[in-house]
Amino acid sequence: MRADAEVPADFRPRRLAALRDAIGRADLDGLLVTALPNIRYLTGFSGSSALLFVTARECVLFTDFRYETQVGDEVGGAATVRIEPTSLWTGLWPAIVGMAGVERIGFESAHLMHRDFARLLEQGSRWQWRPAIELVETLRAVKDPGEVAAIERAVQMAQTALEHTLKELVPGLTETAVAGRLERHLRETGSEAFPFPSIVASGPRSALPHARAADRLLAKGDLVLLDFGAVADGYCSDITRTVVLGSASAEQREVYDIVLEANIRASGAVRAGMLGMAADAVARDYIAACGYGEAFGHSLGHGIGLEVHESPRLARTVDAPLATGMVVTIEPGIYRPDWGGVRIEDDVLITDAGARVLTGFPRQLLEIA
Amino acid sequence: MRADAEVPADFRPRRLAALRDAIGRADLDGLLVTALPNIRYLTGFSGSSALLFVTARECVLFTDFRYETQVGDEVGGAATVRIEPTSLWTGLWPAIVGMAGVERIGFESAHLMHRDFARLLEQGSRWQWRPAIELVETLRAVKDPGEVAAIERAVQMAQTALEHTLKELVPGLTETAVAGRLERHLRETGSEAFPFPSIVASGPRSALPHARAADRLLAKGDLVLLDFGAVADGYCSDITRTVVLGSASAEQREVYDIVLEANIRASGAVRAGMLGMAADAVARDYIAACGYGEAFGHSLGHGIGLEVHESPRLARTVDAPLATGMVVTIEPGIYRPDWGGVRIEDDVLITDAGARVLTGFPRQLLEIA
Repeated sequence: MRADAEVPADFRPRRLAALRDAIGRADLDGLLVTALPNIRYLTGFSGSSALLFVTARECVLFTDFRYETQVGDEVGGAATVRIEPTSLWTGLWPAIVGMAGVERIGFESAHLMHRDFARLLEQGSRWQWRPAIELVETLRAVKDPGEVAAIERAVQMAQTALEHTLKELVPGLTETAVAGRLERHLRETGSEAFPFPSIVASGPRSALPHARAADRLLAKGDLVLLDFGAVADGYCSDITRTVVLGSASAEQREVYDIVLEANIRASGAVRAGMLGMAADAVARDYIAACGYGEAFGHSLGHGIGLEVHESPRLARTVDAPLATGMVVTIEPGIYRPDWGGVRIEDDVLITDAGARVLTGFPRQLLEIA
Repeated sequence: MRADAEVPADFRPRRLAALRDAIGRADLDGLLVTALPNIRYLTGFSGSSALLFVTARECVLFTDFRYETQVGDEVGGAATVRIEPTSLWTGLWPAIVGMAGVERIGFESAHLMHRDFARLLEQGSRWQWRPAIELVETLRAVKDPGEVAAIERAVQMAQTALEHTLKELVPGLTETAVAGRLERHLRETGSEAFPFPSIVASGPRSALPHARAADRLLAKGDLVLLDFGAVADGYCSDITRTVVLGSASAEQREVYDIVLEANIRASGAVRAGMLGMAADAVARDYIAACGYGEAFGHSLGHGIGLEVHESPRLARTVDAPLATGMVVTIEPGIYRPDWGGVRIEDDVLITDAGARVLTGFPRQLLEIA
């Protein structure tokens, strides 16, 4: 291994160059970035208060005094940093005034509250503001090697925590207590945060695709669905396994095997160039052919990265193609009200040679004795 | 105790009536509510996808099919529920068309993305849309007895978890591992969620007011700052304690005692009618008189409830008065870069007889042997 192999390459200049291309193609002179994950992607800054202004020549990050130390460490030379003593917006206007040739400016329509949009029309009235959609998100959908490595670390954390937690599953624990054990194990692997509220849903509650953990007691014979993730260097994993506490009934096994086969088919089929709707259909058509079409009430998957739900989407209505370098979830499920549900979710990387499953945790039905 | 004392009163009709008064005073015919905590407050619905439309006569909640079962259980008669098969917005327009005398409609300027504001101007162009600020938040700032009881349960959960966690603090644990223990204990008390990412900051990192847990190892002699909360029935607690791992140095004790005295003075002084800035000044002036004015770099406190940061604010610039029934944090701190920091945060209820401290956990400096 070469000595420099351990220093991760800095992809931020490349990302900024790609964004500048996109800004130019959108016939804009600049972009006001207000979504914090987009700011983190472009500059490395992970604080909770920031604005970023990007033009062909400038890249200026505005934050407040609380982040003075942190911002320097994280951003380095990736942006010009301005520490604003009062409001970030107060610093923005004079900064733009000083930039020649900046007239048409994009803003992130999906990440700007009306209250702040009103500022653009009032204090920023000398410029032309144009809503922009997903300029940065489109770049983020394709991961560079450092991002894939971070997601892989987050996957490993989630798998280790799951392994420990399954050993502790016993009847009589509440779902919330199981979530607590899982979350402690996640922390012990080094997970920086929880990318979303952990789902631990048992028995009939496993049929609720948006259940969180509640005070239901686990009982022998329950399906127990665990859907959770870890965070490493800002990047998320997202994994679901469904187990049976005790011996599976024939009916549980039948449903499980259909979901498993749908997962295997979809994971095996997704590849660069395939439309999101075509990927979704691989799992959905199989589940429908098995007679459970109505019971798979959500889409097949979504991108993961700095956010746990990001571009692309693998869903019935999505006619955008997948691309090499995307990392997406594959998560078919069957939910039968008052009976229970099964979901099996993996994280996969789209490569030139097809999908590589990052979540190696066994997918076979586990019966927890 | 009367038999009906155990059935919590339903305050939703009263909240809706108060909102209708506010809508009338703002010279509006209706309000489009887009902030989920506001929707939960008014209807009881805790799902992640909803719009609420309120007029003098109507109260209509729009959500999607995923929540069909849940919304019925939670909302009961508090709103008319519409399950939308595709977009919530698609259902909104025909619903308003059917309402006589509705012309001027408020929307929540601080909780509506530009993308959705654009829908109001396009599909909703037959109505006059007016930005509204904090109509519901103002009501939420004053808690009814059921809300106070939920916050008290969340406080109790946080205190129990803290008690268990402090017994396990030893040199050599990472901050993240400590967070994991704390979070597991929170779950075991029944906490539904974590209201914000737990802060466990040790040694010099305790000087960063926005540190999260990281991979630093706890060492003997460290200040260890823990800032976290629990959630009960949707309501948050928020507590901070700072301890010393081992014996406190004279300097640690000196700083601690100043923060403690600032906390005691502020908790003892806050009362209905006092301005937010005056409450802030009680702690700030004391800390400044002790020579640490520059080291208290945030405001004194904030309201807690369905959100962990809500109205009112106790800060230098706030000239709104506190009122009976508000629940706020009192959290003075001193932060010395490269040395460490101390923060002591309590939750207090403003009553007619002054402030009642809900967080009974000892505030004296604890030396963890």
